[in-house]
Amino acid sequence: MKALLIIAHGSRRQASNDEVRDLTARIKASIGSDIGYVDCAFLELAEPSIPDGIESCIQQGASEVVIVPYFLSAGRHVIEDIPAEIAPKIEQYPEVKMTVTSHLGAMEGIPQLLTSLAATAY
Amino acid sequence: MKALLIIAHGSRRQASNDEVRDLTARIKASIGSDIGYVDCAFLELAEPSIPDGIESCIQQGASEVVIVPYFLSAGRHVIEDIPAEIAPKIEQYPEVKMTVTSHLGAMEGIPQLLTSLAATAY
Repeated sequence: MKALLIIAHGSRRQASNDEVRDLTARIKASIGSDIGYVDCAFLELAEPSIPDGIESCIQQGASEVVIVPYFLSAGRHVIEDIPAEIAPKIEQYPEVKMTVTSHLGAMEGIPQLLTSLAATAY
Repeated sequence: MKALLIIAHGSRRQASNDEVRDLTARIKASIGSDIGYVDCAFLELAEPSIPDGIESCIQQGASEVVIVPYFLSAGRHVIEDIPAEIAPKIEQYPEVKMTVTSHLGAMEGIPQLLTSLAATAY
């Protein structure tokens, strides 16, 4: 089973963390049969942590975890901190495939999303 | 003519600002005839400022400026700071229609974007 784990930075402002949780719930509501589980995790300042998020995916039966950095830019968090949080879990579960996608800001669909938004703004 | 102005936070890390500029360039390359101009502006730490970005749109001939907050959560920057930067320009150019869209994290297309990414990850 393939799981999707959204990784956000985390904020002292609870409403920001809840926005990520709401987004996760919306994704859960829209997934097809190709994804069996969706959850979110936070680099800091909010729970669950990244290792705990990966653990949840595996406990739910994931044989593959697709990890999406929900970040706008490829700063230190994306390049160093997130991989460092994931590494021990890769070692702990060598039989589970873990893939880290590009961060949100670099995803191919973003320009199209923003363009379509402008085109339909009234 | 309708212009699209992407508003990012701005960073001390120039590569992050350049990611926004690259995104803007990619959007420019993909717009149809319904949008005549695309630019980006920064709330702080980078140039151009939001008022200068709006001014560029108007100088390019925009009768309508669609302003997209390139932010993940609806924090103080989105709710207070960006509107406060825009307000003087609305007053200065009452004949120009200025629309602020939802911030990136709340856009309807985001769940679909992340889901499709997970589905195609290999």
